[in-house]
Amino acid sequence: MQRIAFKMKVKPEKVEEYIEAHRHVPTNLIELYRSAGIRNLTVFLRGSELFLCLECDDFRAAQNRLENHPAEKRWQAQMAELMGTDTDLQPGEELAFFKEVFHMN
Amino acid sequence: MQRIAFKMKVKPEKVEEYIEAHRHVPTNLIELYRSAGIRNLTVFLRGSELFLCLECDDFRAAQNRLENHPAEKRWQAQMAELMGTDTDLQPGEELAFFKEVFHMN
Repeated sequence: MQRIAFKMKVKPEKVEEYIEAHRHVPTNLIELYRSAGIRNLTVFLRGSELFLCLECDDFRAAQNRLENHPAEKRWQAQMAELMGTDTDLQPGEELAFFKEVFHMN
Repeated sequence: MQRIAFKMKVKPEKVEEYIEAHRHVPTNLIELYRSAGIRNLTVFLRGSELFLCLECDDFRAAQNRLENHPAEKRWQAQMAELMGTDTDLQPGEELAFFKEVFHMN
């Protein structure tokens, strides 16, 4: 089992819209994520800074399963309007991943 | 059940020492955290940036139980040598808490 974590930014003026959108995540999107093996996904927010963590069996496989699905494409298009620029993203990095250095069940 | 998340900083020159310390967290400290109701605690690292998330029934009660325990005091004294300054901490804030805006089991 993998624990995946990464950070993102919301445009400061879009924070309320981001929160509101996450009160109404489409049921079929949640089902899609579950069917891709994603579990225990939490989105945390501080100011305009986001931290996302999730568990899955194989994150790369999950991404492959999601990326061309219409429900995911619709959601990502909606989110793209709200997301800011993460200045900390390194060249060639797709997401600003953290690595796990400790876990206690 | 509460999901608690906050960020911290490690001194850039102490990152390796921080990682190494977390390979050898004392067993009695882990038992203490569990007995305080803390579960599923993960420490994530990116550069010198830390993100910690955990589950517990009552974080305030857990903190009260931990704060004067010798095992916790020893650990916090060891960690204090390694921790950097989080410039994002607001006046009066004890930790740089995030709030949960979405969760999917």
